[in-house]
Amino acid sequence: MKRFVDLADFEREEVLSLLELARRLEKQPEPRALAGRILALLFLNPSLRTLASFQAAMARLGGNSFVINPGRGSWQLETRPGVVMDGAAAEHVREGIPALASYCDALGIRAFAEGKDLASDLAETTFNAMASLTEKPLINLESALNHPCQALADWKTLDDLAVPRAGRFVLSWAWHPRPLPLAVPAAALHMAALRGMEVIVLRPEGFALPPVVMERARQAAARSGGSVRESAEREEALDGADVLYVKEWAATERYGDAEADARLRSALRGWCVRNDWFTRAAPECRLMHCLPVRRNSAIADEALDSARSVVQREAANRLPVQMAVLHQMLRS
Amino acid sequence: MKRFVDLADFEREEVLSLLELARRLEKQPEPRALAGRILALLFLNPSLRTLASFQAAMARLGGNSFVINPGRGSWQLETRPGVVMDGAAAEHVREGIPALASYCDALGIRAFAEGKDLASDLAETTFNAMASLTEKPLINLESALNHPCQALADWKTLDDLAVPRAGRFVLSWAWHPRPLPLAVPAAALHMAALRGMEVIVLRPEGFALPPVVMERARQAAARSGGSVRESAEREEALDGADVLYVKEWAATERYGDAEADARLRSALRGWCVRNDWFTRAAPECRLMHCLPVRRNSAIADEALDSARSVVQREAANRLPVQMAVLHQMLRS
Amino acid sequence: MKRFVDLADFEREEVLSLLELARRLEKQPEPRALAGRILALLFLNPSLRTLASFQAAMARLGGNSFVINPGRGSWQLETRPGVVMDGAAAEHVREGIPALASYCDALGIRAFAEGKDLASDLAETTFNAMASLTEKPLINLESALNHPCQALADWKTLDDLAVPRAGRFVLSWAWHPRPLPLAVPAAALHMAALRGMEVIVLRPEGFALPPVVMERARQAAARSGGSVRESAEREEALDGADVLYVKEWAATERYGDAEADARLRSALRGWCVRNDWFTRAAPECRLMHCLPVRRNSAIADEALDSARSVVQREAANRLPVQMAVLHQMLRS
Repeated sequence: MKRFVDLADFEREEVLSLLELARRLEKQPEPRALAGRILALLFLNPSLRTLASFQAAMARLGGNSFVINPGRGSWQLETRPGVVMDGAAAEHVREGIPALASYCDALGIRAFAEGKDLASDLAETTFNAMASLTEKPLINLESALNHPCQALADWKTLDDLAVPRAGRFVLSWAWHPRPLPLAVPAAALHMAALRGMEVIVLRPEGFALPPVVMERARQAAARSGGSVRESAEREEALDGADVLYVKEWAATERYGDAEADARLRSALRGWCVRNDWFTRAAPECRLMHCLPVRRNSAIADEALDSARSVVQREAANRLPVQMAVLHQMLRS
Repeated sequence: MKRFVDLADFEREEVLSLLELARRLEKQPEPRALAGRILALLFLNPSLRTLASFQAAMARLGGNSFVINPGRGSWQLETRPGVVMDGAAAEHVREGIPALASYCDALGIRAFAEGKDLASDLAETTFNAMASLTEKPLINLESALNHPCQALADWKTLDDLAVPRAGRFVLSWAWHPRPLPLAVPAAALHMAALRGMEVIVLRPEGFALPPVVMERARQAAARSGGSVRESAEREEALDGADVLYVKEWAATERYGDAEADARLRSALRGWCVRNDWFTRAAPECRLMHCLPVRRNSAIADEALDSARSVVQREAANRLPVQMAVLHQMLRS
Repeated sequence: MKRFVDLADFEREEVLSLLELARRLEKQPEPRALAGRILALLFLNPSLRTLASFQAAMARLGGNSFVINPGRGSWQLETRPGVVMDGAAAEHVREGIPALASYCDALGIRAFAEGKDLASDLAETTFNAMASLTEKPLINLESALNHPCQALADWKTLDDLAVPRAGRFVLSWAWHPRPLPLAVPAAALHMAALRGMEVIVLRPEGFALPPVVMERARQAAARSGGSVRESAEREEALDGADVLYVKEWAATERYGDAEADARLRSALRGWCVRNDWFTRAAPECRLMHCLPVRRNSAIADEALDSARSVVQREAANRLPVQMAVLHQMLRS
């Protein structure tokens, strides 16, 4: 495997094989598998799980890693082509990325959406400006519209819990004080579709996921025997649900318009998940979230602390699935 | 050993055994003892010695570590229960700590006192809010009222220098531009008491250590054959002293009242340790400080640079004592 | 080797031997050469290449490293002797450096020029205030007037590309929005002189390198069969050049005078390297820069992206030359 940047680049069977490897590494550690190998981790945005779990994954496999935080001890990076660099950024990714790549065996990059221009974010302009600069094995640590490591960990979580392949997976918008990127909802949607689930995107008006994201998921679902649809009706969507996957995101129909977004979300503080959301769901219905989550804003304590919540298992699964990715990528 | 959060959790004999192990590891390195083991280091506050020496300790024993700095490349953490998270903190420790714990074999946490409410700080509210969330081996990297790694290094320093067990140990307040936490004075006091020394807490009026801290130390002293008392009279306290342990701390009697603290300390710039403080001390009297220290504020150059000063040895001893703690905790 | 702080401390033959070792380590990795060894990296200023490549170098040789960033998760450091520390800095280097040194086998320090007082920067006041505090092996990660690791990587780059020993090496000033330190121009100048090249320093009026820097380079050139001179005439200097080494730096003749510097450089935006700079250069003339570089401020895209540019090779060479330094320093 040369690149792990989008789960959609893989066939369903390839994902299942990665998850098989993840389970094997959980049971049979390989503490020298990546001896001498180096992973460079470039974080343009904050992180806890990704930052910690990738360092741990390399260590568990006997390898090494180092972290670069532009603007925090390292130079601010410019990503736009052709600009006259006389502002804050001291370095262009055209120099920075190949330099970093020359010091490692694989490179991970985190670059969130700018949140201003939807077309640019959908095109992964920033991430691709960097990804295109190296031939080294590359891992997407979360880009504008993607988070394949989280999606893979979520898939493993569903498998661990024996959630039926054809079960109902409700991806629901939740309230947050600010407009957040679409990376996790897009990745979770695609993951559930590719797994073959009955996927419903539950969101208020103005927050529909971009048509191209929905369409890609529909095609993945079609190949895997699943389905994808949208709803703004909570009770209907959650009726018989096996999974409620919660995520906060920006007002897509007024993307980049902070004022419109704030106006829209000001009426939506009721979109904080409580136990009564599960009244008509399947008895075993799971509550998922990629974390970090703002308690009592997006999800109430009562729900997060209930037996339904599997957010800790999702977080813990980051380690074995990333070990599997690194193992496939760097094991000689 | 599952937890190293408070030296007071250990019997005197257990501490002596840890120090014995530390001395053994100094002489006989065990470069593979913790091969494959991972220590997660969570720093909510700045650090130099702790940050460097724990990473070095794991490396010396063949293990690995990674560092998480909330608010500096990682999400700001909320520690209070039940709050509506619509402010600066993106993540609650209830999610963050178990996630981190799932990526490591042991977790170290640094969380200074808030310095507002003495009862809350004495109860270790912030540290315990995190410590209670994991069953993994846990190390206190300095909490509101404790710093067991520093205390252990200081004990080893006293032993290295053959300071008599029953010697006079004067813990003296010193001037600092701001009110600092009580963690180190409380930990040093308890350490010296548990070691069996004649301990005198020398401090100006308004800066007495909290009664509960003094009482715990008195009980430890009683078990070890030592004693603990207070004084505001420098000459009397230092008469025949074997050790002057210097530390800056907040005005405890007006704890959290910044204005009162500033008023009190404005008259106390004379509490900057100079060579003439030692006039009536034992000829071999040592000058100790946990570092960092503000030169010519808390201690004058002439004293810090004198032969009495053993602050470097204290800092260097952080490494072997922490190796011993990690060895006992993680060696399978 | 106990210290690698200035390329001028080494004879030409010693440098050639280091480069020989670097080439050997490129071809024949020694993944256990520094097993158990620890490098402490102290960065008082931002970094990408140095930060990444030193961590990678230790990992490639089986060793370990850790990074300390004062003011970013670690205490701000005071370097001046004798001051009353009642400001922002919580720790003096007199305590901090020996403490760090006690946790490692070698220490790397980055401390840029203050840019206020030329005599102080030429005397390496800040770097030496730290370097004098430890007997441990020490590496200069860039000081006020030096950057020996970059110089060594540049020398290797010249050798890799078979640039003639007696070739013409033009070190040219380039525009930058702010006055930058003299470390790289001084180090590159000395390197080329010591290599035995015909060195020309091309710079506008007001930006001449300090006489003492020029004189040291002239002496090195004399010993190696090279030469050093200055010019303000671009066409003349670049006539037949084998290398154009570009660097931005401060107005030396008004050093520390921000207003004068800004006035001088405001007329010099034409000092942005374009392809037409090479019209009279040797056909194979190389374009070098230590990075980071501000595109279209110091060097135009057309030049940086041309086949002449070897900036990536310079960056990549940081790894093998630093592995060689560490190998000589720490291999027992």
